[in-house]
Order: sequence, then C-alpha cells, then structure tokens
Amino acid sequence: MSKPAVVLLSGGLDSTTCVGVAVDQGFEVTALSFDYSQRHRVELAAARHVVEHYGIRRHFVFNVGLFKEIGGSALTDFALDVPLGRSNAEMTGGIPITYVPARNLVFLSYALGVAETVGAADIFIGVNAVDYSGYPDCRPEFVRSFQETANLAVKAGVEGARFRVHAPLVDLTKAGIIQLGARLGVPYHLTHSCYAPTATGLACGQCDSCVLRRKGFEDAGVPDPTPYDRAD
Amino acid sequence: MSKPAVVLLSGGLDSTTCVGVAVDQGFEVTALSFDYSQRHRVELAAARHVVEHYGIRRHFVFNVGLFKEIGGSALTDFALDVPLGRSNAEMTGGIPITYVPARNLVFLSYALGVAETVGAADIFIGVNAVDYSGYPDCRPEFVRSFQETANLAVKAGVEGARFRVHAPLVDLTKAGIIQLGARLGVPYHLTHSCYAPTATGLACGQCDSCVLRRKGFEDAGVPDPTPYDRAD
Repeated sequence: MSKPAVVLLSGGLDSTTCVGVAVDQGFEVTALSFDYSQRHRVELAAARHVVEHYGIRRHFVFNVGLFKEIGGSALTDFALDVPLGRSNAEMTGGIPITYVPARNLVFLSYALGVAETVGAADIFIGVNAVDYSGYPDCRPEFVRSFQETANLAVKAGVEGARFRVHAPLVDLTKAGIIQLGARLGVPYHLTHSCYAPTATGLACGQCDSCVLRRKGFEDAGVPDPTPYDRAD
Repeated sequence: MSKPAVVLLSGGLDSTTCVGVAVDQGFEVTALSFDYSQRHRVELAAARHVVEHYGIRRHFVFNVGLFKEIGGSALTDFALDVPLGRSNAEMTGGIPITYVPARNLVFLSYALGVAETVGAADIFIGVNAVDYSGYPDCRPEFVRSFQETANLAVKAGVEGARFRVHAPLVDLTKAGIIQLGARLGVPYHLTHSCYAPTATGLACGQCDSCVLRRKGFEDAGVPDPTPYDRAD
C-alpha cells in the first residue's frame, strides 16, 4: 500500500512538478488548491487537469477570502498592476508587488490540517529559492521552521508522528526543475504560470512568472508547450 | 498614537480577556474572528458585542471551510457528540474529541497576514496551558515556535520587523484569568464559552468549556454572569 502525502497544487509548473516527484516516490497524493480570488484563477482549471492526469482521488479546493480582504498584492488587488517585461536581473531587486502576505504559511497550515486528518505525515510544497521571485515564504529556512511548528501544533505530533515538509525543488533552478519534470513525464502542457492571463486564459508572456517560465524551458533545452499571447 | 495589534477573538472568556489586556497595554486592537461552521457559532455574536463594547474599529470575520470539510472534531462534525458532565480530572486524560486539527495554526497564520497588512507587529492569542482542554496548539512551546516561523514567513520580518505573539493567559488558571479580567473590567456578560448551546443560544452548563468556566468563576470568587441551561 502506498503512503499518503498532501501536495499543495496551484496548477503551476513548480507545484505540478512536485506532484510528479511525490508520485515518483510512491506517495498516494491528496492535492490541495486554493481559490483566493487570485487574478489568475484560471490556474485552478489547470490544477484540475493535473489531478485528472495523475488519477488523484482526493482534491480539496478551499476558498480563502483573507488575501482579497487584506489586499495589498497585485495578485489579488486588481487596482494594482502586475509588472510586465522585467528581466531576471530586475526581478532580484527585492520583494515584488505580487507578494501576498503570509500566503504559504496559510496554505501549509491548511495542508497540515488535511494531512493530520487523512493520516499523512508528508507534505509537499513546490517552493524554490533560486529562480524565485524574492518571496520570503519560499526560502528553505521558512520551510524548516514551519515543519518544527507543525509538529508542535497538532495531536499527531504530540502523539509521536513526525510531519515532514518536503520542498524538493528548493535548490533547483527553473531549468533544473523542468529537466527533472521532463524526466518524470510531468504534463507541463496542462500547467498554468501566468499572473496576468488574457480574457481567454492565454499566458501573457511578459509577467515575472511567464518570463521565468520561458527562460526555464529555454535553458533546460526542453520545448515550451505554452501558447503565449506575446512572447517577444 | 497607539500601537496597532491584532487580537484573535472567538467571543469566549479567554480571548475577550486578551482584548482587555491588549487595550490595557495601550494597543489599538484589530479583532479577528472565524466562522468555521463551529457548533457554537453563536460565539460570533458575542465577539461582535465585545467589539462594540471596546469600540474596536476593525473586526474581520473570516469564513474558513477547512475544518468542516475535514471533519473529525465534535465541534464541527455534528455526527459526533460533545462530551457533557466531565469533571476537571476527567478532562486531563488526553486530547478530547473537541480538538480541531491545526486550528490555532490556521488562525495565527491569518492573524499574521492581517498584522503585516495593518502594520501591526503584535498579535494576541488567548491560549492557556493550565486549565486548558489538552489541545496541543495551546501550549507555550507552540506559540514560541509559531513566532519564529512567522518572522521568517513575511516580508516585514525579512525587512527587520519583529513580530511578537503574546499569550498573556498562558500561565494562568481559569480563575486567574477571570481575576485579571475582572480587574480590567472585561465584559464577561457579553462572552460565550459553551460548545453545545441550546437552540436559543443558552450555555449548556455541562460541556468541558462550561464546566471550566463555571469552576473558574467559583474559584475566582467573581459572580458568574452566565445564565446556564443546566448548572446542576
């Protein structure tokens, strides 16, 4: 019988690769997605396609009103513009306006609640600290600290279970992630990365997320299956 | 100008005392409550009365579907019974069925997101490890660990802010909490503690939470303003 694991699945490239890694390691995946009024809610459809592709039997999609309510991020506040056309170098200049306060902490906390309930001791999150966007909650020290807190927070931890938070992509470049995923047969054609999709759901090709994705495929030497609106 | 703080406010005795402590310490309180389909949702009305009493200007009430969805707790799963008529001694025999997986972790994570957004570095939670119900996420070591994780999770932490998670009741008995609150003029008549209120919202007088509350007032030598359904 395979071991249960909870995987945070946005529907993007990184989290889908994480599903691929968890499946490859023999875990039976419970997937967790969040509708937080993100500008790119179309990623939830991608998440569902990934769930279907892998035959995942349990997929929770939780509504989290918090981020819309508190605002302040270009991802949930439509009065703010998503930056377009930034180079990789420009992206490294601090924490960008697409930052959402406490997002991964909230998501991991939900994952822990689900993990305890389904009897999983393993949680996967696709954070990445190399070609990342400067988000504090994508750093390995955050993930390690959360794991400690998690083990103190829940009954199973007190009773001797040890929760492990896996961040298998944390030290990889975007190209490295794509090469790993390509080896594992990750269905990248189903994934969505763009922060500012067109009305029809097409990736813009210009936001930080698209720029990182495009360059990642290029550097990996893997054909990019994404139809971009503008890839110039 | 007073310093902003975020206080988790269920509408119960402990969290309302926490509001009293924060106000007494000169904080301008932003209150946070959660509708998680708890059996005792009537506590949300109590929270609103407390907010009114203190003239708190910002009160967020978030819907959190997680706990209902994952079930497994007598507080959110109506197929399970809330234990009634247990003595204090009986309550110390392990983690009870009213335990909700990862609840305080989720609540504190929301509080951190709100704190960062309103510019507060202080978060108050009314956990209590003496006359508590055996919940792992009420222990001081959990609160300390969360504070560390919080400072790694958000932009303000990276930029040098230090979030403090205050648990001013953590070492107090229930009687000690009530004595403290009585000194601070905490409006206990507005608070709600019961896990299994009657159809009209009256406290049952028999669940763990009622038993702890009743004994607390008795031991504190403070008149209990609560009209119980059955207080025998």
